[in-house]
Amino acid sequence: MSYDDQNIFAKILRNELPCIKVYEDELTLSFMDIMPQCDGHTLVIPKVSAVTLFDLPEEYYQACFQTMKKVGEALKIAFSTEGIMMFQLSGEQAGQTVPHLHFHLLPTSIVTLRTKKHAAVMEDQEKLNTFAKKIIAAMPA
Amino acid sequence: MSYDDQNIFAKILRNELPCIKVYEDELTLSFMDIMPQCDGHTLVIPKVSAVTLFDLPEEYYQACFQTMKKVGEALKIAFSTEGIMMFQLSGEQAGQTVPHLHFHLLPTSIVTLRTKKHAAVMEDQEKLNTFAKKIIAAMPA
Repeated sequence: MSYDDQNIFAKILRNELPCIKVYEDELTLSFMDIMPQCDGHTLVIPKVSAVTLFDLPEEYYQACFQTMKKVGEALKIAFSTEGIMMFQLSGEQAGQTVPHLHFHLLPTSIVTLRTKKHAAVMEDQEKLNTFAKKIIAAMPA
Repeated sequence: MSYDDQNIFAKILRNELPCIKVYEDELTLSFMDIMPQCDGHTLVIPKVSAVTLFDLPEEYYQACFQTMKKVGEALKIAFSTEGIMMFQLSGEQAGQTVPHLHFHLLPTSIVTLRTKKHAAVMEDQEKLNTFAKKIIAAMPA
């Protein structure tokens, strides 16, 4: 998969498409997955033209982990759980649908995940907005 | 979940228990999951007393990503796929079974994963040894 700068996450990064943002810094952006596999399903993406984990430049490693930890801590509080599942799909054969590297954070168990299809059903926008507000309110400083 | 230095990965790191190793460096170790969810299911662990992603010290971020990329590239070659699924379970409520931080690498699709239970069925040792040899042979320098 080569980088296509017309993919939806590239458009979100250029503000050509909206997203329901929960966190942003210089190197990363985090927003609600619009086809969630559980309540609170959130994405973290690096601000760089990388398709898979294998394309991620070293200078983004620290920022990606830091944002995953920050958003993950907020998810634990916002969804009253100690369990966070993180996953990342590299390549169409793994099930990757958007060709811009993204890490999934889910305040749920891998068992729940097994019952829900990936990138399958569009969630109600208002529900996602409500979740985002809860996550932002719970974000560590 | 607090760190229990009697967990099986801590014992593997102290060489008190065996593992089917595919890669090791100063800060990380990678070995075959003995209850795989697909052929080639491999784990990457940091050599530090961390239970979840939230406990991982910053100085291990780079090493963890580098080892995941290295082993992932080998998995792509060894199992003839472009698709690598990576996942990480933080906390019992997410389905974490061993209380030492581990990243899962699977040369398969999230769709396959949905059909296979996590940490459920012990794999044949000889089969795992054969897979490990293939992965080691495919490891980038």
